[in-house]
Amino acid sequence: MHFSSVIHILGFLLMFLAIAMLLPIPFSLHYGDAVHFQLLFSAIITFVCGLIGFKSTRFERDLRPKEGFAVVTFGWVSFSIFGSLPFLISGTIPSFTNAFFETMSGFTTTGATILTDIESLPEGILFWRSLTHWIGGMGIIVLSLAILPFLGVGGMQLFKAEVPGPTADKLTPRITQTAKILWGVYVLISAAETALLMLGGMSLFEALCHTFGTMATGGFSTRNASIGSYNSAYVDYVVIFFMLLAGTNFALHYRFLRGNFKAYFRNREFLVFFSIIIAATILIGLDTFLLRYENAALALRKTLFQVVSILTTTGYGTADYEQWAFSSQFILFIMMFMGGCAGSTGGGMKIMRIFILVKFVFSEFTRLLHPHAVVPVRIGNSSVSREVATNVVGFFILFMLLFVIGVLAMSSMGLDMATSFGAVAASLGNIGPGLGKVGPTDHYAHIPLIGKWVLALLMLMGRLEVFTVIILFSPSYWRK
Amino acid sequence: MHFSSVIHILGFLLMFLAIAMLLPIPFSLHYGDAVHFQLLFSAIITFVCGLIGFKSTRFERDLRPKEGFAVVTFGWVSFSIFGSLPFLISGTIPSFTNAFFETMSGFTTTGATILTDIESLPEGILFWRSLTHWIGGMGIIVLSLAILPFLGVGGMQLFKAEVPGPTADKLTPRITQTAKILWGVYVLISAAETALLMLGGMSLFEALCHTFGTMATGGFSTRNASIGSYNSAYVDYVVIFFMLLAGTNFALHYRFLRGNFKAYFRNREFLVFFSIIIAATILIGLDTFLLRYENAALALRKTLFQVVSILTTTGYGTADYEQWAFSSQFILFIMMFMGGCAGSTGGGMKIMRIFILVKFVFSEFTRLLHPHAVVPVRIGNSSVSREVATNVVGFFILFMLLFVIGVLAMSSMGLDMATSFGAVAASLGNIGPGLGKVGPTDHYAHIPLIGKWVLALLMLMGRLEVFTVIILFSPSYWRK
Repeated sequence: MHFSSVIHILGFLLMFLAIAMLLPIPFSLHYGDAVHFQLLFSAIITFVCGLIGFKSTRFERDLRPKEGFAVVTFGWVSFSIFGSLPFLISGTIPSFTNAFFETMSGFTTTGATILTDIESLPEGILFWRSLTHWIGGMGIIVLSLAILPFLGVGGMQLFKAEVPGPTADKLTPRITQTAKILWGVYVLISAAETALLMLGGMSLFEALCHTFGTMATGGFSTRNASIGSYNSAYVDYVVIFFMLLAGTNFALHYRFLRGNFKAYFRNREFLVFFSIIIAATILIGLDTFLLRYENAALALRKTLFQVVSILTTTGYGTADYEQWAFSSQFILFIMMFMGGCAGSTGGGMKIMRIFILVKFVFSEFTRLLHPHAVVPVRIGNSSVSREVATNVVGFFILFMLLFVIGVLAMSSMGLDMATSFGAVAASLGNIGPGLGKVGPTDHYAHIPLIGKWVLALLMLMGRLEVFTVIILFSPSYWRK
Repeated sequence: MHFSSVIHILGFLLMFLAIAMLLPIPFSLHYGDAVHFQLLFSAIITFVCGLIGFKSTRFERDLRPKEGFAVVTFGWVSFSIFGSLPFLISGTIPSFTNAFFETMSGFTTTGATILTDIESLPEGILFWRSLTHWIGGMGIIVLSLAILPFLGVGGMQLFKAEVPGPTADKLTPRITQTAKILWGVYVLISAAETALLMLGGMSLFEALCHTFGTMATGGFSTRNASIGSYNSAYVDYVVIFFMLLAGTNFALHYRFLRGNFKAYFRNREFLVFFSIIIAATILIGLDTFLLRYENAALALRKTLFQVVSILTTTGYGTADYEQWAFSSQFILFIMMFMGGCAGSTGGGMKIMRIFILVKFVFSEFTRLLHPHAVVPVRIGNSSVSREVATNVVGFFILFMLLFVIGVLAMSSMGLDMATSFGAVAASLGNIGPGLGKVGPTDHYAHIPLIGKWVLALLMLMGRLEVFTVIILFSPSYWRK
């Protein structure tokens, strides 16, 4: 391990975070909420710490996978520690556990909150809270399309070929190039959503906060009743559309913007993603269309919104799905594990992996009937290498194992079945709202102290494709 | 497909079943319950149908895998159809759905019942009901140690080397030899349990019925309160001991009886099986020892009984575990998926597969750190072939997929979360009692009609290692 290089990069990233902390200040001053000094003070602390780390070390050599895992994991952890300063210093979230939970939930684009009355918070703080999502989303896009494919985590190497940018073998120049391109796309789509939401009557402040929450598939809102509080078909459909975009591989958006208008519907993963949304809306619709809402248009809007929100792992709400039939809730629950497309800001296991798992099972049947045949796992016209299939399967087993351990931990703290299942699935999949006492109309304030740390760890592991975090606990990682 | 050979074998097996139907008659006569004619009549119908099938066809050639899958699946289905005749003809279970459910539950050694008052049934019928377990168990031992390893289902080929009997390549002589040896072991252990239960005060009738339920890891009792109704520490510990034996690979019992006294504790799978029991008893004990029972001895007895009963997938009960903490219930729920050792009469995914899955994940971590290394999955001193590991993983994905589809189906019929999860896990894993409204003190009578068929199919698939059944639905199976 080259600690020097790792700390050097982390220091640099913290300085960037410090500058981001200044962005809420104009809103704070505009609304006169008296937290601008606290924000400035947080930014200064963060900047100074970052500067010390940056200056006291140097970038020794190009990164190896080992340093890559450390930068990513410790990057998210240090962002969550320093990012909680505005909450702590302003006194809006006085407990460190709660502030850390909220910030980790932000940077991992989860959207689970410990706040019981969001609307009572100063605007500057709410802006910062939503901004953590957007920053987290920026990190995820680069992580999933430029870093993990080269670290070989959970089959992400599938995307080596799909990534825009130079095809250099060295990690650093490639990350820089790819990041510039994809962040451009991210900023562009974000600007479009902000404009459309303002057209719908939101203020710049609200439009930006909800854009941050949408584009990062986060889910933090400025309202207690989430998007539902606007009670507007226009707002709902704008958010649905942009949640869909956020749950789609950003490499496809890049290709579309470059003029390849068929990019989406030529992509198998996107087609599966789209089909799941339609199928789930129909299945849940059998319940909601007939029984829950006064007219079909309202039922469609409510059903589609929750389906897209959960599948993309955003977690915005316009309806209390716990009032729906358990079968509908179970479909949402299963979608929490699926998540968005790989290369999107969405969490969960990713559609591509689910697709490969199903294909894997089919190839097993062929193998049973033809024991001596070589049966590849095929996606469209190309076949998935054994290595990738093995990585994907390993990821699935580990994800399920973590879910079981998580539920065991949460239930041992006295949580009931629905709450344990919901909280763990929603944290591991980076959704936000779960089931039971952490459902769409609830919050995480009442979770026991240790439980909050467990869930925060699950958010981190889920967000960083699990292996990236757990490998740091492996003794052979630390061996020379 | 050589239908002729398949029907020939099925006819032969039905004649065997018909003879088995005569066994309850002495008990029926002894207790004067007036169902002996009905049993005789059922036996005659079954025998005649079997004879027609047997005589109208001939055994054309040695079986290929294709015919193997058909014999196994249709064997269990036809046994469940003809085996329900005594219930139907005696009028004790007048509905065909219920009678089929009960019989399938018997032959698959599940033990889920639709009966609301077991003690009101005639002894002859109760004896037949328990006997279906024992016959099912005989089938499973041969299936898992002599048939599936050669069909390559779900990694069972691991056991090719472990099986006693000749090492001939042809399937038929091997099955015959292996069956004789293993059934000898099965009968011997069964006789021992019957004797020990009679020493504890049970009548021959009760001792035999409970032996059938134990040795097959079935769970049908002659009492409404299951083993709990005896309220005897002696009976509990005898049943615990024999459930443990039934959940252990029968090839190990064979080796032990041949003088290899270290056979058990040299077997990795058995060690893991044993460790899980100890760990689960301690974890659940944290709840039951402190809060639920008046003294430690009683708490140990109750906890150990339910742990062994669920892990071996027997399903006998001496306590209502739904009164325990949800964390304890969740541990039992997870054990429903694990099941007994491969080569035992236990259901579930089997300990060996769980072990390989965990090892598989570890090998993925090694691979991440050393991308160019060849990393085998190791069990003890030998390494598992890629093919076996792939088969096991495919089995796991399919099992999880079936669980999800099962819960989706059951919840769409209006069942709640705990009941859906419990019923599907208990059917697929061949346990019997689940959670919620199908908990240890409940029954399956109230499940909707279609739901009973879904659960019966899940029992069949779970029992026959899933692939064996589903492959019959594959179009390429039926292609010439």
